Amino acid sequence: MTLQIAGRAFDSHLLLGSGGLPNAALLAPIIEAAEPALVTVSMRRTSSLAAGGPLSTIRRLGVPVLPNTAGCLSAREAILTAELAREALGTDWIKLEVIGDETNLMPDGTQLLEAAESLVRKGFTVLPYTNDDPVLARRLADAGCAAVMPLGSPIGSGLGILNPHAIESVVAAVDVPVVLDAGIGTASDAALAMELGCSAVLAASAITRAEDPVAMARALRLGVQGGLAARGAGRIPRREVARASSTTKGLIR
Amino acid sequence: MTLQIAGRAFDSHLLLGSGGLPNAALLAPIIEAAEPALVTVSMRRTSSLAAGGPLSTIRRLGVPVLPNTAGCLSAREAILTAELAREALGTDWIKLEVIGDETNLMPDGTQLLEAAESLVRKGFTVLPYTNDDPVLARRLADAGCAAVMPLGSPIGSGLGILNPHAIESVVAAVDVPVVLDAGIGTASDAALAMELGCSAVLAASAITRAEDPVAMARALRLGVQGGLAARGAGRIPRREVARASSTTKGLIR
Amino acid sequence: MTLQIAGRAFDSHLLLGSGGLPNAALLAPIIEAAEPALVTVSMRRTSSLAAGGPLSTIRRLGVPVLPNTAGCLSAREAILTAELAREALGTDWIKLEVIGDETNLMPDGTQLLEAAESLVRKGFTVLPYTNDDPVLARRLADAGCAAVMPLGSPIGSGLGILNPHAIESVVAAVDVPVVLDAGIGTASDAALAMELGCSAVLAASAITRAEDPVAMARALRLGVQGGLAARGAGRIPRREVARASSTTKGLIR
Amino acid sequence: MTLQIAGRAFDSHLLLGSGGLPNAALLAPIIEAAEPALVTVSMRRTSSLAAGGPLSTIRRLGVPVLPNTAGCLSAREAILTAELAREALGTDWIKLEVIGDETNLMPDGTQLLEAAESLVRKGFTVLPYTNDDPVLARRLADAGCAAVMPLGSPIGSGLGILNPHAIESVVAAVDVPVVLDAGIGTASDAALAMELGCSAVLAASAITRAEDPVAMARALRLGVQGGLAARGAGRIPRREVARASSTTKGLIR
Repeated sequence: MTLQIAGRAFDSHLLLGSGGLPNAALLAPIIEAAEPALVTVSMRRTSSLAAGGPLSTIRRLGVPVLPNTAGCLSAREAILTAELAREALGTDWIKLEVIGDETNLMPDGTQLLEAAESLVRKGFTVLPYTNDDPVLARRLADAGCAAVMPLGSPIGSGLGILNPHAIESVVAAVDVPVVLDAGIGTASDAALAMELGCSAVLAASAITRAEDPVAMARALRLGVQGGLAARGAGRIPRREVARASSTTKGLIR
Repeated sequence: MTLQIAGRAFDSHLLLGSGGLPNAALLAPIIEAAEPALVTVSMRRTSSLAAGGPLSTIRRLGVPVLPNTAGCLSAREAILTAELAREALGTDWIKLEVIGDETNLMPDGTQLLEAAESLVRKGFTVLPYTNDDPVLARRLADAGCAAVMPLGSPIGSGLGILNPHAIESVVAAVDVPVVLDAGIGTASDAALAMELGCSAVLAASAITRAEDPVAMARALRLGVQGGLAARGAGRIPRREVARASSTTKGLIR
Repeated sequence: MTLQIAGRAFDSHLLLGSGGLPNAALLAPIIEAAEPALVTVSMRRTSSLAAGGPLSTIRRLGVPVLPNTAGCLSAREAILTAELAREALGTDWIKLEVIGDETNLMPDGTQLLEAAESLVRKGFTVLPYTNDDPVLARRLADAGCAAVMPLGSPIGSGLGILNPHAIESVVAAVDVPVVLDAGIGTASDAALAMELGCSAVLAASAITRAEDPVAMARALRLGVQGGLAARGAGRIPRREVARASSTTKGLIR
Repeated sequence: MTLQIAGRAFDSHLLLGSGGLPNAALLAPIIEAAEPALVTVSMRRTSSLAAGGPLSTIRRLGVPVLPNTAGCLSAREAILTAELAREALGTDWIKLEVIGDETNLMPDGTQLLEAAESLVRKGFTVLPYTNDDPVLARRLADAGCAAVMPLGSPIGSGLGILNPHAIESVVAAVDVPVVLDAGIGTASDAALAMELGCSAVLAASAITRAEDPVAMARALRLGVQGGLAARGAGRIPRREVARASSTTKGLIR
């Protein structure tokens, strides 16, 4: 099963965020371990695009780059950042972030929707970072976004998926791929996201700030694959009482 | 990292329970997909040991067999069943189950400890199915058990790990391997077990009763591997507030 | 401690929704048991305002009525409904609901904000039913809403508070009272809402569809009072390991 | 509804642990706020029984005292402590604690059962502190214990009820009252315990170590009452999708 976004197919269901890396030399081995579909790059960090910075590593390894608008606080600012990204990187794909809460870096739904509508009109392939809100997700999909990227919990918190029911509601609400973005801390979180119906998982801090980022990159890749395979396998229903795996018929007494 | 039980090393951290399979022909492809360290066989089902039954398949594939005492309601009954297994299968390894609750198939701690002590004295390598109770787990380890196998939730319930804190307490309480047994429903459960410090995971119904048992066998194998890798990688701490993956220094404003 | 909304003080921290009642004669004893600060009435059910309907009971018992716009799917529709309520009931208080998802009856943030801004300009005291989204909550408060009413889980689901962290974020984000609306199933849910920092709890189905609605009205009142008292009392911190309530000093050995 | 233990009726469903109090003068107002059925006193703290100590306050207020064997690490030690309590306090009621884990103060099931059987034979009314294990609980009840007191989480942890399913299993397994003991942190925890089917809740640190112990005593009393009332009221079932509290029939369009 391949991931399909905007008509493009990816072999991997893991997206990598390149921010937060303590040591730029780790990016290449992380990418090799994660085998990501896309790697995000922040357009608002001066270092991202510098020679020898993340962008050059990502390109050298042949992974598609996904610029983001991290740090933008308004639709206007995010739109300008997206346009800058298109010029500088030669891609019309944009991970759209418009933050309304500087404590929890939560998306601002109204500004986000406004920016998404504008960028779609301008020909961008828009992947918005959004809340775990099925109505907003559907509005974004209706506006022409290529995917929606709901949060599991606040960015960098590592709290995992605080509201699995809401993520399932988002999946049910839209026809575009759902990419779980933000909050992932470990492999079981990534597996759960896929089991809930997400098409992919983005991890940044979970990998870049782990004690061993390369090992965690591999762990999350396995978690995503395991969760995807489990979803396809049709899990047993949850039951309030036990059920013997062996029948009691034919017991030797 | 290999799994070590009683001085024996295993490449896999997944144990497979063979009960509950709707179609005996599936056992071979399940084993190929799960790559289990051990496969359990119920000694009290007349069919287990029949020609063409699970045992012959397991042996043909060269996987070590672990007989169990599923369905036993007393220490005496479990001890007899273990002795029968040793004679019939030529192994002194036994997964010891003594059930005290026919609704939830919960272990009976007192009878379990009594049976474990007796079987250790008789030279068995004992792996007891136990509650998520650190004190009982330590008593079992002190009695000479080669591993302890706490439940995540009732057998066959698919409820996952209802009390992760208790599983961590069991891991902290003993020096022998902890194998999460019972309750696993899907890949994220298996990953979580490993992240909590378990050395392995046993799955039976989760695989054998899934819609596609072979696919679920592969999914759980990936989940176990992902969880183990994540534990080794040193996950980020959980934080109540967000932390930007990109620093705000150097932002283009 | 009194509940203060828009400069008005209430002795109770429980709001009652009058919908879903199987038997109109139960409304009076429910109100007596719940002692609610306000009782909501749906403006879009023809029966609400009929002689002998909920409205006449609520007025006879001297409880302030809070008309709602349940069932509205757009800002325009909700605004018209609010204006109808003002004329019909002689109150400018309105519980504003604009639904964007007919499966889970989730709020439509964009339409909600638009309606709230308009109604505030028209002199209404607006209490919007909203998502558990701190950014949207702050936008609503900034727009002049008198309170915000985030959901704990979908209306009528009885799933309780699926994301306590999000409710705490909403409380931290606004200066107006936060009223937990939707999802409450039982007394512990109501207590938890208050412990998380909410100023009040609204319950409708939890009471009106319980087997014994009058008993549940009393139960939720006690739960709200207990949770409020607990928040004021300064709970012990959560600890990963035990702490003896008795010190070990002075033990008789 | 009254609490019945060993043929004795109590108006209250809250038990108070007197350990951990920073200031002995607070005990009387705490008791007045909590209105407890019983107050426990540690027999192994030299100060408990001293003139002017907890015991004299409890007796002055006319509340029945329940001595406990906190700190005992073996059946033998607990039995001796119980006998000392009977002589010193003139009551054959004993809260039986036998700890097997000095980190998490978890009960030692085997020693606990042995001590309980012995004390019942000696004519004690035995209330054992136990794990959330339905099999052990039934063994204790079968041995003649007057109640069973499973933990919600480790003593003093304030983690609440980590495994609600297990508490429900304990309630289903025994015919004697179930008293939730250990782990309670706040009012919603106490309410939940009652909703799960417990007959009473014991709180010690949650009250004595709160910032305002008297306020928390009242809060937990309300929580217990709310949870008990909610259980009696027959809560609505949990539903995965929303259900409008108002029917859509008769909507004004």
